Amino acid sequence: MTLTDIATPSVFETVESEVRSYCRAWPVVFERASGSRLYDEQGRPYLDFFAGAGSLNYGHNNPVLKRALLEYLGNDGITHGLDMSTTAKRDFLKTFHTTVLEPRALPYKVMFPGPTGTNAVEAALKLARKVTGRQTVVSFTNAFHGMSLGSLAVTGNAAKRAGAGVPLPHAIRMPFDDYLDGQLPDFMWFERLLNDAGSGLDHPAAVIVETVQGEGGINVARAEWLRALAELCRRHEMLLIVDDIQMGCGRTGDFFSFEEAGITPDIVTLSKSISGYGLPMALCLFRPELDVWQPGEHNGTFRGNNPAFVTATAALDAYWRDGALRGRTLSRADRVERALLDLCGGDGRTGLSVRGRGLVWGLEFADGERADAVCRRAFETGLLVETSGPNGEVVKLLPPLTATDDELDEGLGILARSVRHTA
Amino acid sequence: MTLTDIATPSVFETVESEVRSYCRAWPVVFERASGSRLYDEQGRPYLDFFAGAGSLNYGHNNPVLKRALLEYLGNDGITHGLDMSTTAKRDFLKTFHTTVLEPRALPYKVMFPGPTGTNAVEAALKLARKVTGRQTVVSFTNAFHGMSLGSLAVTGNAAKRAGAGVPLPHAIRMPFDDYLDGQLPDFMWFERLLNDAGSGLDHPAAVIVETVQGEGGINVARAEWLRALAELCRRHEMLLIVDDIQMGCGRTGDFFSFEEAGITPDIVTLSKSISGYGLPMALCLFRPELDVWQPGEHNGTFRGNNPAFVTATAALDAYWRDGALRGRTLSRADRVERALLDLCGGDGRTGLSVRGRGLVWGLEFADGERADAVCRRAFETGLLVETSGPNGEVVKLLPPLTATDDELDEGLGILARSVRHTA
Amino acid sequence: MTLTDIATPSVFETVESEVRSYCRAWPVVFERASGSRLYDEQGRPYLDFFAGAGSLNYGHNNPVLKRALLEYLGNDGITHGLDMSTTAKRDFLKTFHTTVLEPRALPYKVMFPGPTGTNAVEAALKLARKVTGRQTVVSFTNAFHGMSLGSLAVTGNAAKRAGAGVPLPHAIRMPFDDYLDGQLPDFMWFERLLNDAGSGLDHPAAVIVETVQGEGGINVARAEWLRALAELCRRHEMLLIVDDIQMGCGRTGDFFSFEEAGITPDIVTLSKSISGYGLPMALCLFRPELDVWQPGEHNGTFRGNNPAFVTATAALDAYWRDGALRGRTLSRADRVERALLDLCGGDGRTGLSVRGRGLVWGLEFADGERADAVCRRAFETGLLVETSGPNGEVVKLLPPLTATDDELDEGLGILARSVRHTA
Amino acid sequence: MTLTDIATPSVFETVESEVRSYCRAWPVVFERASGSRLYDEQGRPYLDFFAGAGSLNYGHNNPVLKRALLEYLGNDGITHGLDMSTTAKRDFLKTFHTTVLEPRALPYKVMFPGPTGTNAVEAALKLARKVTGRQTVVSFTNAFHGMSLGSLAVTGNAAKRAGAGVPLPHAIRMPFDDYLDGQLPDFMWFERLLNDAGSGLDHPAAVIVETVQGEGGINVARAEWLRALAELCRRHEMLLIVDDIQMGCGRTGDFFSFEEAGITPDIVTLSKSISGYGLPMALCLFRPELDVWQPGEHNGTFRGNNPAFVTATAALDAYWRDGALRGRTLSRADRVERALLDLCGGDGRTGLSVRGRGLVWGLEFADGERADAVCRRAFETGLLVETSGPNGEVVKLLPPLTATDDELDEGLGILARSVRHTA
Repeated sequence: MTLTDIATPSVFETVESEVRSYCRAWPVVFERASGSRLYDEQGRPYLDFFAGAGSLNYGHNNPVLKRALLEYLGNDGITHGLDMSTTAKRDFLKTFHTTVLEPRALPYKVMFPGPTGTNAVEAALKLARKVTGRQTVVSFTNAFHGMSLGSLAVTGNAAKRAGAGVPLPHAIRMPFDDYLDGQLPDFMWFERLLNDAGSGLDHPAAVIVETVQGEGGINVARAEWLRALAELCRRHEMLLIVDDIQMGCGRTGDFFSFEEAGITPDIVTLSKSISGYGLPMALCLFRPELDVWQPGEHNGTFRGNNPAFVTATAALDAYWRDGALRGRTLSRADRVERALLDLCGGDGRTGLSVRGRGLVWGLEFADGERADAVCRRAFETGLLVETSGPNGEVVKLLPPLTATDDELDEGLGILARSVRHTA
Repeated sequence: MTLTDIATPSVFETVESEVRSYCRAWPVVFERASGSRLYDEQGRPYLDFFAGAGSLNYGHNNPVLKRALLEYLGNDGITHGLDMSTTAKRDFLKTFHTTVLEPRALPYKVMFPGPTGTNAVEAALKLARKVTGRQTVVSFTNAFHGMSLGSLAVTGNAAKRAGAGVPLPHAIRMPFDDYLDGQLPDFMWFERLLNDAGSGLDHPAAVIVETVQGEGGINVARAEWLRALAELCRRHEMLLIVDDIQMGCGRTGDFFSFEEAGITPDIVTLSKSISGYGLPMALCLFRPELDVWQPGEHNGTFRGNNPAFVTATAALDAYWRDGALRGRTLSRADRVERALLDLCGGDGRTGLSVRGRGLVWGLEFADGERADAVCRRAFETGLLVETSGPNGEVVKLLPPLTATDDELDEGLGILARSVRHTA
Repeated sequence: MTLTDIATPSVFETVESEVRSYCRAWPVVFERASGSRLYDEQGRPYLDFFAGAGSLNYGHNNPVLKRALLEYLGNDGITHGLDMSTTAKRDFLKTFHTTVLEPRALPYKVMFPGPTGTNAVEAALKLARKVTGRQTVVSFTNAFHGMSLGSLAVTGNAAKRAGAGVPLPHAIRMPFDDYLDGQLPDFMWFERLLNDAGSGLDHPAAVIVETVQGEGGINVARAEWLRALAELCRRHEMLLIVDDIQMGCGRTGDFFSFEEAGITPDIVTLSKSISGYGLPMALCLFRPELDVWQPGEHNGTFRGNNPAFVTATAALDAYWRDGALRGRTLSRADRVERALLDLCGGDGRTGLSVRGRGLVWGLEFADGERADAVCRRAFETGLLVETSGPNGEVVKLLPPLTATDDELDEGLGILARSVRHTA
Repeated sequence: MTLTDIATPSVFETVESEVRSYCRAWPVVFERASGSRLYDEQGRPYLDFFAGAGSLNYGHNNPVLKRALLEYLGNDGITHGLDMSTTAKRDFLKTFHTTVLEPRALPYKVMFPGPTGTNAVEAALKLARKVTGRQTVVSFTNAFHGMSLGSLAVTGNAAKRAGAGVPLPHAIRMPFDDYLDGQLPDFMWFERLLNDAGSGLDHPAAVIVETVQGEGGINVARAEWLRALAELCRRHEMLLIVDDIQMGCGRTGDFFSFEEAGITPDIVTLSKSISGYGLPMALCLFRPELDVWQPGEHNGTFRGNNPAFVTATAALDAYWRDGALRGRTLSRADRVERALLDLCGGDGRTGLSVRGRGLVWGLEFADGERADAVCRRAFETGLLVETSGPNGEVVKLLPPLTATDDELDEGLGILARSVRHTA
């Protein structure tokens, strides 16, 4: 079967806006999904190394979570709760506290800022500005934090930024780890600006960072770089915000992606896989002394999406009461890395390079066209992967953490063949 | 039972952020809900004239929608779909087109901007600015459009605005209908500014308006005012955005709240009750000639919340294939209005006033303290209502559209007794 | 002689930027000037009812000031002094204090913010924001306060604003006196916004106002309107800034244009005629308790233009030790007003209208083309007048305060003939 | 005589604002000035190595310029001309064209943007934004471009920036030459941002640069750095603005400070010494294809300060018809450099360092206290010098270009003694 055999589903073209995008790369109609696979209307399976852009760490319709969700819905549990106290929210808070915060000695208060990542980032930025009385926020080259105006201001992508139609002020960019090929000592530029009263840098309220930039091209910050950043923030009294929306919830092995570096951010944003079932949910975590919100100062209609609390609780219970998932992810990281390094040839001959942590990996090609071709071929042969990076030159691998070894091997095999096919 | 008998649930206090608000007014833990009622953990029922701030127009856990949802989830339908084409999305688009758009001769393209109201408003503002190449957006006194920076800039509430911690530019306020007690002809100030090259008003990209301001105090715009606004926008080439997030989906009788006025906005935002089940979902609708988005120019992780598409489709099928719900809502509007006017005494003696449309009504008191006291007493006697307005002086009634006559009478009765009790 | 006889001076066209404007309306090369007249290179005299846009209240090269200036320059007095203490500055400060501030019981501190009006406005806005910690400044429809970004933000003219190339935030417009034809009680809109916590108006730092809008079309604020504005500012703790750059220094009779209303602004800007000789100079005056500047926090290379201090001192000595100039200006106001009313016919037949105070008057025509034609004809017959107003529909009369009665009559005669000639 | 013998002039303290600054460092009242010396009221002379912060390159009350000025004023030449064509302006334009532009093959159009440096910078920024349709302007660490909001946004000094009271958007800082101690290849960071679609840098309209940063601490850009910058601007279609307000008019030897590098900026700002006599005047020069201004789109009351045109013309005639002044300046540069290097000891022992070009030199001390002490001692012993740099740690030498060799030696001698005295 080739792409031309697939009839374009017309209502999407006639009624849905031109803004739609994934459906252009994968021109089929998906009907159901289970574990590591989606199925289109013809019943054709697709191995999913995309995982809802990081929202499906436990796979599609994970049976453990599904059971809890169906039971809750069947019993007429509260569906929509704003920020009322509910049984489901209490269960989540208790479980999150005992399985995630306490064992890591993280003192955070938990805020439900609205159910999407950008809601969480907007809340984090508001809070950092309110607490410090300052306005500037530092973000990094190739950062991605969301599409509403506050989050977009700290996002790097030029096309997304242009969509704003207004200036995006109060944000300044610093080089992410290794952005300047090691030609400048880490943070020398940043600290020089901070120390120089004539530099023109208005003292920042906060620094917001992803430990691994997903949309930006799977750029992995080294642990020592993160530690130096945390120390810089401490020294200059800037709040450190880790946006763990895509890399949290076990994607890099640990529950939080910053654990490996041994740092404690002042504010953390979580979303995507926190509900565990692909249901909209987001959290903003922060040190208790930062909890200066007035009641309702930030709000939102769907901040109490209780079915998501139920699956989130079930996911924490199933996967984070012990270190099994973490261990499995880390050991698979080696397996994936070896496979990808094999693909790269290892001697620079192929022009490919590889980077990643845990179960997030990027395979960088010379340009976006090649990476696109690889993804297209992978789709045709049953694997969902997408590109990322400023020019779409990086093929991004985000398999479910629950994928089996066989599924991992199968996907890596399709990828390898797609790379060779498009050489 | 009095408030002091209710033990405060401690995890909410120790772990959840101070930003929580509804749980302070209603200090119980809700466990389940059905139709027009919520139940707390002690099994105590509460009649719900709040309806998830307008998100539960068809009541809690509506059985028709619930059936569709459980079946979909049970069959492993796609849960998280980004903007991939899915069976559930196609069903929704087709149903929305045939039951809502076509019968009203509305030519709109449909965008899924992310599942919350503020996502939809951000997308609408971006699009208006992109299409016109202008930046200023006009909103109205006491408008509420959301909490992310773009939406917050067009929101009036001072406390919410202060939360931004940065200036909120590119927005200008005009007086809502009757804001100046009829002392100025409608739109005279606005049009004077538009016609005067020295007025300092940079030509606006768009005007964003709620036909009934919910958070702003149930301020109802007259149909002729809306028509004059639409005509003004046409004459001055400004796009007209109707934010129908709270007042759409039948709240005022018609599916869209602007239908009564006979206008066709250029852009419409929908959220809250569009999924019908309290699940996060939002739409941005616009004239096809405005559909100038680049693929992915605005995006978001949860814009394809497929379970919400399923309940949305079921709700449209169940309630909008004919005019029954609309008729019932309009006839109940009379019933509620009569009851509230009775409560007001009708001769100004009580100092109360009433306003509303369809099944959204406001009862205005002299000050916020009294309105608070009424809501508190209502809660104690089994009715959930909240205040709105700049000083919280308006008790807001948003019963489910599916409430029975008995439930309506019961709630109005509790309200009447609460008013008398607090006199 | 007609316009076509005048050879266009070529270096202006080949070397000077297209931004030049007055030279287009008056296409001759001026060589010298004295009292109320300019002379072109052919020796042709022009009666000047323009007076350097209000910078030459005491006429061109006023002999009293000239004598002081030549003596100062001849003796090698300090020319350029930044903010060093100099003899010339001391003389000015003493004289300004004794002839202007003390007699009016005005407690102001004096700041030299740089020698142009826009420098003074920028300083005033900075100070108001610094003192209050707020950002929004209210200005009025058709206000003109300058061309640098801070001043331009509070200026109304659309073409000038468009020149910024960036948004002009932190400013909001209110209707100037009689802007809405008396259909709205003065300040009802403004105060409604201030009193309503949901209005969307961020509490302003200050209000900036011209008592007579010169560039805006000679719009004259009534004394009671100014008093009500001052009272409103006091009640809502906003600083009142009177921009007296064009209307101060006796233009309306009193030294300050706001004296008639009996108000004491918190901050006053002066420029244009303060040096009295057309030399660049500006002042920012403010209540002593507002003098919270750090040394050098606002500065500028030419803020100590000492030759201007010398002529300024001479002008104060010559014209403001007694009430003679004031009396003469007020009596001439009557003479001008009578002549202009005659011109208007008094019965609305002509479509003309007249307004003004002291020696600033506007003659409004139906459109800018007619007003342009009148000015062109006036120029051809020896009188310099320019248009103002949003559409250039108002012929503006700003004769030197020192013009003789004969000169006044002569100018009014040319104007009358120009009006008839273009009818 | 010591400082305590000098009675503080009271009117400055009682009436003038606290914003005054130079008078605090030099607590005397200056009365007259001639050539390289100022005299206080007691007749005490001060050798001036400050030169009006670069406004008095030809010395105080230069007799050649004085003669022209007195004659012009005596003959009642036009004093205040807005942008009318005048004889004095024509003479200036012709002379500027023939002595400055033509010999250097500079194609510039000449704009009179208002008589202060910040007016010129505001005009330059407006034009760059208008021409490109973009908003961001790149400036450099420790840049100083002025105090009005547009200019202040591209200025680095934190204390000055804080004075704005509002955010200063649309500007981004890059490292000036050698800012990072050579640890990063020139412009690598800048070009990386420009080439990376995910960097978050909105494509800049322009880059604004001083070839030698005066207020920033006498930081001298190398010619090759300037050439690389010009090439970068060309390659990325950003306009290059050289702010030559302090370093132009011969301060570095050539008329323009950028001539040595062999570059042709797109826009140049001039002020300070352009009038030659300390009279307020400024120019904005730009390539003719950039001259897209509408008539009057940027204006200002004192943009036609004709007495300044007269002295400017006289200065060009006297000093720029041949290369004598340039040659003298360059040879004296060697003399000054040698003297300062002597002072530094040359072996790093003193902790002092020296840098400069032409007749602008900086002597850097370990901290601002020491530099202050040196300036204070210099003042007490008859020499005016001021500090610059972010912490005031650099003593800045700006002697008149017309100073004699003896005066230079005298000043350098006082400086040397002051350094030793404060060691």
